[in-house]
Amino acid sequence: MMKTLNVALDERSYPIYIGQNLLSRTDLLAPHIASRQVMIVTNETIAPLYLEQVRQLLGDFEVHQVVLPDGERYKNLDVLNRIFDALLQARCDRQCTLIALGGGVIGDTAGFAAACFQRGIPFIQIPTTLLSQVDSSVGGKTAVNHPHGKNMIGAFYQPRCVIADTNTLNTLDDRQLHSGLAEVIKYGLISDGDFFSWLEDNMAAILARDPAALQTVITRSCQNKADVVAMDEYEGGVRALLNLGHTFGHAIETHTGYESWLHGEAVATGMLMAADLSARLGWINDADVQRTKRLLQHAQLPDLPPSDMTPSDFLQHMAVDKKVQNKQIRLILLKAIGQSLITADFDPDCLKDTLGAFTQQSA
Amino acid sequence: MMKTLNVALDERSYPIYIGQNLLSRTDLLAPHIASRQVMIVTNETIAPLYLEQVRQLLGDFEVHQVVLPDGERYKNLDVLNRIFDALLQARCDRQCTLIALGGGVIGDTAGFAAACFQRGIPFIQIPTTLLSQVDSSVGGKTAVNHPHGKNMIGAFYQPRCVIADTNTLNTLDDRQLHSGLAEVIKYGLISDGDFFSWLEDNMAAILARDPAALQTVITRSCQNKADVVAMDEYEGGVRALLNLGHTFGHAIETHTGYESWLHGEAVATGMLMAADLSARLGWINDADVQRTKRLLQHAQLPDLPPSDMTPSDFLQHMAVDKKVQNKQIRLILLKAIGQSLITADFDPDCLKDTLGAFTQQSA
Repeated sequence: MMKTLNVALDERSYPIYIGQNLLSRTDLLAPHIASRQVMIVTNETIAPLYLEQVRQLLGDFEVHQVVLPDGERYKNLDVLNRIFDALLQARCDRQCTLIALGGGVIGDTAGFAAACFQRGIPFIQIPTTLLSQVDSSVGGKTAVNHPHGKNMIGAFYQPRCVIADTNTLNTLDDRQLHSGLAEVIKYGLISDGDFFSWLEDNMAAILARDPAALQTVITRSCQNKADVVAMDEYEGGVRALLNLGHTFGHAIETHTGYESWLHGEAVATGMLMAADLSARLGWINDADVQRTKRLLQHAQLPDLPPSDMTPSDFLQHMAVDKKVQNKQIRLILLKAIGQSLITADFDPDCLKDTLGAFTQQSA
Repeated sequence: MMKTLNVALDERSYPIYIGQNLLSRTDLLAPHIASRQVMIVTNETIAPLYLEQVRQLLGDFEVHQVVLPDGERYKNLDVLNRIFDALLQARCDRQCTLIALGGGVIGDTAGFAAACFQRGIPFIQIPTTLLSQVDSSVGGKTAVNHPHGKNMIGAFYQPRCVIADTNTLNTLDDRQLHSGLAEVIKYGLISDGDFFSWLEDNMAAILARDPAALQTVITRSCQNKADVVAMDEYEGGVRALLNLGHTFGHAIETHTGYESWLHGEAVATGMLMAADLSARLGWINDADVQRTKRLLQHAQLPDLPPSDMTPSDFLQHMAVDKKVQNKQIRLILLKAIGQSLITADFDPDCLKDTLGAFTQQSA
């Protein structure tokens, strides 16, 4: 039943294991640990659920742990420093393997800690949310937020392996599950029209957490992502397509202080805004926009930004996006469902129209 | 007159320019700048001396600057964050080139900022001290200190080029010059016995800041370092030899809070302790230890640790060294002047004897 995907990056290649009951298997984790020392980084929500189970797999190792507060607002330099403190207090050396056990915030923060501590220590991802299983745990992007911008401080740093146990999704609340589906729908939009159609047909089973449906969701998403990352590890080109909806979405997250909106919720709204802009540019038709909107709604994701956001709020936050070059905003836009491009070459009036339409609707 | 060395690292290869009046040449810097934006990171000591001169070379660019306080105690996460603040306030994008103008602390801190900001932006080193010209600006090691250990948080991140203008050494105080000579002598000890002999013969000219002597010092040191880095960019093996004296030296720096001792001073004493231990192990003879001691003394470097340090102070700090594996201290030791090795395989009683001898002498 377990699927194994390979992220092909020469000497930095690694497997992604996907399936049920993987946190009960003693054969998966240990072979990827470099020496006797292990530091598990997790949070207050996940620790009571899975920390003991993971520690059970590591009976023969010297296991340390640090339990962080839960939430995107703790993805910052101060919390990063708490990981360094824990590593140094435990006398962890350069061979110590750091295990991130949790969602995207834990994976991104712990991954960046692993990238920096002693200039890099071995790192393993055990993602426990749909969002992290389909996106953030794969591909080596690690980061923390800065008050002036999301994921502004980070590194490209690949894990030794990723273990995605679909059982962990049983303890995920509905809102988190829906948030993860935003990134799943994203893969359909940017490069996999067949997957988009499959999602349209199977959303009910997914929302009912049917194990087979979830495994397909995760496997197909990770395969899409692994293919892109293998082509462009450091985001010099095609990898930027994975940011569909993220420029609008980051603006929403920055505006709301990373508190009230989940990442996937912001990305969902952002993807619909990108689809809307693509239609205004004449690149897709309105039926494609409506299909996108319907699938997002079916996945119970928001399709409007916060009611207090203005077009200038968006433009201000979008100006510090990492894709900006020479002051020009570059966006991922659609040529079809399943076909995307990155471009700074769009009519700025159309962007204003999109921002106006989405903020007027919410007023 | 200008020498150009190449650090051979495939697509990360870069030139080191060494000579007089390089900060007056408009042809060196600009070709290595990626786009229109530049952020110069320097400190309060260097800014009045050279900042305007470097800005003159960048007339056509959008130039920003951040001036940090001067001193090893500012090589920390808080000051790193000031660089991120400056980059974000200036709306610097991922193509912005960061220029480190200053000594090793500026180079290490600014280099780590460049490695992390938006997961990596282009980076140029303009080292203005002997220490940074012969060592820290070459090879891509960047880091900041943690209260519990030196250079504990960092990255391997290569610059686009290094510009070492020997004129900048004219404004260096004697103590800083001597500190830099510790790393120069290190290259002689670890792999270049001929250079060690040349230094014995030419120390008077070097101390008198004879330009030709200084250029030879820098070129030969950088060549030695570039050769090692090309073989082992990420310090998996031979590169660790560049840490001769540093395990003892970092213990001194951590003990004294990075305040009263300069890095090179701590390394000088550490190298003599490593030589002493090597002799106690029977690997070199006492005449080699005395040659080492005389050359360090000639370069006006200390040969004893702070008088309040005990053997247990050393052991405590050495236990968190980055070379520690499975709780074992690994040291760089000498087989001859010009020949070194890294090993955990030494009689711990000999280490105790060395620590006892150097701390008793200072009591």
